[in-house]
Amino acid sequence: METINLHTNQRNEFVNITQQVQKIVHDSGTQNGIILLHIPHTTAAITINENADPDVVDDILLKINEVIDDDPRFQHREGNSDSHIKSSLFGPTLSLIISEGEILLGTWQGVYFCEFDGPRNRKVYLKILKT
Amino acid sequence: METINLHTNQRNEFVNITQQVQKIVHDSGTQNGIILLHIPHTTAAITINENADPDVVDDILLKINEVIDDDPRFQHREGNSDSHIKSSLFGPTLSLIISEGEILLGTWQGVYFCEFDGPRNRKVYLKILKT
Amino acid sequence: METINLHTNQRNEFVNITQQVQKIVHDSGTQNGIILLHIPHTTAAITINENADPDVVDDILLKINEVIDDDPRFQHREGNSDSHIKSSLFGPTLSLIISEGEILLGTWQGVYFCEFDGPRNRKVYLKILKT
Repeated sequence: METINLHTNQRNEFVNITQQVQKIVHDSGTQNGIILLHIPHTTAAITINENADPDVVDDILLKINEVIDDDPRFQHREGNSDSHIKSSLFGPTLSLIISEGEILLGTWQGVYFCEFDGPRNRKVYLKILKT
Repeated sequence: METINLHTNQRNEFVNITQQVQKIVHDSGTQNGIILLHIPHTTAAITINENADPDVVDDILLKINEVIDDDPRFQHREGNSDSHIKSSLFGPTLSLIISEGEILLGTWQGVYFCEFDGPRNRKVYLKILKT
Repeated sequence: METINLHTNQRNEFVNITQQVQKIVHDSGTQNGIILLHIPHTTAAITINENADPDVVDDILLKINEVIDDDPRFQHREGNSDSHIKSSLFGPTLSLIISEGEILLGTWQGVYFCEFDGPRNRKVYLKILKT
């Protein structure tokens, strides 16, 4: 099992980790298989989205932060229930195909760590299954 | 393949199944690998979220039930289209890493069966891949 | 690795691909294992939902297209930021259990390709791991 360590700088932020995931696959020498990514946090998530125009990520955060707002009726005293909800909607795990030594992604796809309660030190766990 | 059977008591309810998943991994004797959880229902889901303060789950349900409300314009006659939408947003499957005989979870992470149209008898299917 | 090619006809549309996934599993001769489905697009998704009453899918799209609307404040110039958001919420990958030669689905479950920016030509990648 491998681990990516990262530091986030804002409360809500998407960090592109595609190169780090690709490097772990390269270093493992895996030609074919799958890789499972898991974040051990309940106020963050992992997703795939556009890797070209940074406006896309800004638009995603603009909208989701309004739909899942910080509601004064929330009872959880840490004041981050909105972060917990976004964690489950975007999802804490992601499985990708490894083909011919590379993680298989579409032209415009990047892998993003989704921070919803930063800034914090965060981790991504990665497990490769060779076939 | 293994099955967890459970009974839910409310229309919307999160049931913590972490211990049951952990026991299935222990009983299998698996040291390393992944476990895939799948719920065979279209008005329920499976997710990871905070295992400590029960207010978090209450806040999640408060907000999501407002964002995805029971809209009078829905055409599906069973009156549970909102449940179907929440099923897809939280997701019907979840993959977890098994490391040194345990499912790998962060300190605050628990695995939850998400009921969105209870009370009902429900199932979770679990499949282990050893590495 | 296998590929399903499909063509969508509307901007927002769910295409039932259950039979095509089942056929790929049959043709592979796999008795037990898992299958990972990945869509290489950032304005589409893959999910499981009701396979019987088509009103369910219509209701899902009615609600999600209002919650994640095409907001005039979006900066991304292609005018499809709403599609990108829905892609991450419904999710770009799905893992299913293969048991006794069949993908394991509940009675009412179908596998859907979710188009959020059609009409387009689209792909689904599928990777089987036998156990």
